[in-house]
Amino acid sequence: MGSLGALAGWGLLDYKTEKWALLAKKGYQERDLDPQISVITKLKGVSVTQIEELGNRLWDVADFVKPPQGENVFFLVTNFLVTPEQVQDRCPEHPSIPLANCWADEDCPEGETGTHSHGIKTGQCVEFNGTHRTCEIQGWCPVESGTVPIRKPLLVQAENFTLFIKNAVTFSKFNFSKSNALDTWDATYFKRCRYDSRYSPYCPVFRIGDLVAAAGGVFEDLALLGGAVGVRVHWDCDLDAGGSDCRPHYSFQLQERSYNFRTATHWWKASGVEARSLLKLYGIRFDILVTGQAGKFGLIPTTITLGTGAAWLGVITFFCDLLLLYVDEEAHFYWRTKYEEAKAPKVTTNPEQTEPASAPPCMAAQVS
Amino acid sequence: MGSLGALAGWGLLDYKTEKWALLAKKGYQERDLDPQISVITKLKGVSVTQIEELGNRLWDVADFVKPPQGENVFFLVTNFLVTPEQVQDRCPEHPSIPLANCWADEDCPEGETGTHSHGIKTGQCVEFNGTHRTCEIQGWCPVESGTVPIRKPLLVQAENFTLFIKNAVTFSKFNFSKSNALDTWDATYFKRCRYDSRYSPYCPVFRIGDLVAAAGGVFEDLALLGGAVGVRVHWDCDLDAGGSDCRPHYSFQLQERSYNFRTATHWWKASGVEARSLLKLYGIRFDILVTGQAGKFGLIPTTITLGTGAAWLGVITFFCDLLLLYVDEEAHFYWRTKYEEAKAPKVTTNPEQTEPASAPPCMAAQVS
Amino acid sequence: MGSLGALAGWGLLDYKTEKWALLAKKGYQERDLDPQISVITKLKGVSVTQIEELGNRLWDVADFVKPPQGENVFFLVTNFLVTPEQVQDRCPEHPSIPLANCWADEDCPEGETGTHSHGIKTGQCVEFNGTHRTCEIQGWCPVESGTVPIRKPLLVQAENFTLFIKNAVTFSKFNFSKSNALDTWDATYFKRCRYDSRYSPYCPVFRIGDLVAAAGGVFEDLALLGGAVGVRVHWDCDLDAGGSDCRPHYSFQLQERSYNFRTATHWWKASGVEARSLLKLYGIRFDILVTGQAGKFGLIPTTITLGTGAAWLGVITFFCDLLLLYVDEEAHFYWRTKYEEAKAPKVTTNPEQTEPASAPPCMAAQVS
Repeated sequence: MGSLGALAGWGLLDYKTEKWALLAKKGYQERDLDPQISVITKLKGVSVTQIEELGNRLWDVADFVKPPQGENVFFLVTNFLVTPEQVQDRCPEHPSIPLANCWADEDCPEGETGTHSHGIKTGQCVEFNGTHRTCEIQGWCPVESGTVPIRKPLLVQAENFTLFIKNAVTFSKFNFSKSNALDTWDATYFKRCRYDSRYSPYCPVFRIGDLVAAAGGVFEDLALLGGAVGVRVHWDCDLDAGGSDCRPHYSFQLQERSYNFRTATHWWKASGVEARSLLKLYGIRFDILVTGQAGKFGLIPTTITLGTGAAWLGVITFFCDLLLLYVDEEAHFYWRTKYEEAKAPKVTTNPEQTEPASAPPCMAAQVS
Repeated sequence: MGSLGALAGWGLLDYKTEKWALLAKKGYQERDLDPQISVITKLKGVSVTQIEELGNRLWDVADFVKPPQGENVFFLVTNFLVTPEQVQDRCPEHPSIPLANCWADEDCPEGETGTHSHGIKTGQCVEFNGTHRTCEIQGWCPVESGTVPIRKPLLVQAENFTLFIKNAVTFSKFNFSKSNALDTWDATYFKRCRYDSRYSPYCPVFRIGDLVAAAGGVFEDLALLGGAVGVRVHWDCDLDAGGSDCRPHYSFQLQERSYNFRTATHWWKASGVEARSLLKLYGIRFDILVTGQAGKFGLIPTTITLGTGAAWLGVITFFCDLLLLYVDEEAHFYWRTKYEEAKAPKVTTNPEQTEPASAPPCMAAQVS
Repeated sequence: MGSLGALAGWGLLDYKTEKWALLAKKGYQERDLDPQISVITKLKGVSVTQIEELGNRLWDVADFVKPPQGENVFFLVTNFLVTPEQVQDRCPEHPSIPLANCWADEDCPEGETGTHSHGIKTGQCVEFNGTHRTCEIQGWCPVESGTVPIRKPLLVQAENFTLFIKNAVTFSKFNFSKSNALDTWDATYFKRCRYDSRYSPYCPVFRIGDLVAAAGGVFEDLALLGGAVGVRVHWDCDLDAGGSDCRPHYSFQLQERSYNFRTATHWWKASGVEARSLLKLYGIRFDILVTGQAGKFGLIPTTITLGTGAAWLGVITFFCDLLLLYVDEEAHFYWRTKYEEAKAPKVTTNPEQTEPASAPPCMAAQVS
């Protein structure tokens, strides 16, 4: 009786697996897992910074987005340290650099440098400020010093900037394209709307502060020393249900909690001397990754899934055998009914006389 | 007789599937679907623009390619709007900006701004031009105004620029590499040739106008407000046939019909004042995506494919059973021949006396 | 007897395949093949160049990394050719350009240009230098001339620069994250350490010269005309063994042996004239590609692998049949034992009288 339960279980398992493979996993559909993807981004907003070196300065999109091309990866400046108008000259190294501090010229071997140095040592030990003496170096002077603001990010209003993500996917297998932005003649629609999965799912305009919050971060904290936020746009389209329910799902992940890099603007002064403005930029990098899959009914995938399900019957048959022939109490009885030994006649007058002998185990299985 | 046809059909299906899996789908081959890819691009050409702000100006590759590094994604400037020599100052906002228009100072709350604003309102309502009065803002002045040319793109000669796509793929599984560019000592070969799939398949030099046309666009239209073109380079290499037929296939898709972004060049004037030149660039972004797969005979894949095909025989056996036992007219006859009921003896003197009784369905199947 | 050996072989094959699928290929594990990836790079170092046009000039990270954002792809300048302070003007074309050389004005049609030209021909034939006469062009003047140094790269000290690759992977299926950098409070750890797979596997700081050597290149050669190096970071994590053995494996490949591009810095001179400094940069592009997979025990994959292995038994059964029924010497005997022909009764009084007749081949197989 216990065997009965086990057998029923196996049968149900096969039925369930078949149903799952066919319906839940949409095994009847042809799938396109590799759509062509296009992403264009655009940030909007302005922020005013007030620092001694630059005074009162407004930053707009041409200032705070690096690079400016509006691709799927971009960096939004939220904080910075500027060293304006450097020229190639001799000046004291910064005390924080390894082997920069000195008492006398002998501490500064001429020509020495390190991976963290700002230049090449000239051989002299000079005054950095009232309290420190450091080795003089040849390079871009004055060297970067000071620290980035750590109470509040300089571009604190960046929290209110908006990001427009225009994304188009094309499933070439089914010749089907879809965009995540409403196809409208209203030029002001995107200036007014914000993304909402229920009410405005085709308005991909996001407020930066909301993005960071959705990723699990706090904007003012992340904006201090920078970070990285991943934006995943996933399309899961059932083309048998029509193209209307095919819309993107957005998810956000905080990937890094510290991000900065240095960049410089070069120009030539009236005197013919090359000058540059060095910026150590802190900010949030946004990484937009688009994935997608689409499915549509196909005869071949349906056949394959059905076949695979049917092949499981063979497995169940095997396990049934195991149970009945080896586990069940009356196994010996079933064995005798199932198997008939067959052996090739050795020395006989009647070719059909079967003699129980050692038959290949495979042969024994065959008769069943 | 109908059953015979069905059975023959099933047998043929299995044979066809096996043949398809093995030969057409190259089931006997080991596959590498993930090659290492390297892409270098280079644009060549010059274009003259004539506008009031810049006069007669020649644009070359260092001017019209953003970014300049020659990677697989780059933007080719075809049209633009320039606001040269902006400085941080106070000036009238542009009338097209939401909430910019005003009659009196009260209409312009000091400190107010919006995501589309060019700066922060100062609190004054000033004259923008003879016909408009707008709120004064603090920011980069003068604000961007004017419109991009819409009759003809400024860099209309960009249609004749050439794009060189150097692409190397390495299938590390088979230690096989191939480049899409002819390995030649002739330094002028690539200066003279153009891509042709039959006569010069290893000269990956494309004329921009031809690329846009192949993607289904018209250059002069796309160049006005910009767009995005995807270039797909696909390698499908059968290494059993030798490496010579392993060449890339190029396809082009128009992905977007509108693309622009803003960028600025900063410098310091002799007076020590920071200045910038703001450019709103329209153009075509080219997205080169390289995919590839290579196959070579392998023993394991061959075995697996044969085995999978053989496993289908089990499916066919199952379906034959279904037909003969349930569908066919003489089904009842076949049933009796196939199945022999076996039941464990209950209370009998002869342990081998079989009694027709309710045997587990699985057991019934076993005997067959 | 030969058949016995073949059968034993088949049984062993199935056992081996099952064991391989389950243990070696970890068929019992659920797998995540698509982790979220984040990469931040940072280069450090300085290099002094000495050329006539720029004098003694120090290059630091803000000068030699393009682009500066610290992403997974970046270009390290190792050699260059500079044309400082170009302005829009008329000047002689370079003799190396096709159709540039001339004897008289008639050789220079006004308005003519080519993809390799530096500008538009004005119609005059002028002196380029003491030995050459070329067509005059309108464009950025003077045109780029001279050659890049070919004995030794200008930024030869770049060999000692260090590259810090910060990489985080997140396997969302298992909610598991890992970073390749040691989580330490010691701010100087990364300033002192270098990557070693045994002693400091979580210090992803690499010396540029070592990277190029690991890729099979020689830095001084590659640095002359540039190239491209691929860095592959692969994670293979068995989460059943705990997260501690989950560490990245770095491999390097030389992808290209020549790489350069042109870029320019623009500014406005005191006179209001636009000027630019043109740089033809040669260098090494680093392409960091991160891949990863993680596995953890799962009930469904285990079941599927076991089932697949069991399904192979069906294959073996099939092959056994083939051997015994067609190949073996006593095949005819086994045939008779295995098969019992069954035919639906035609015109008989006894419905159970079986008559050997042409039965469907499928039916014959059924009885066995």
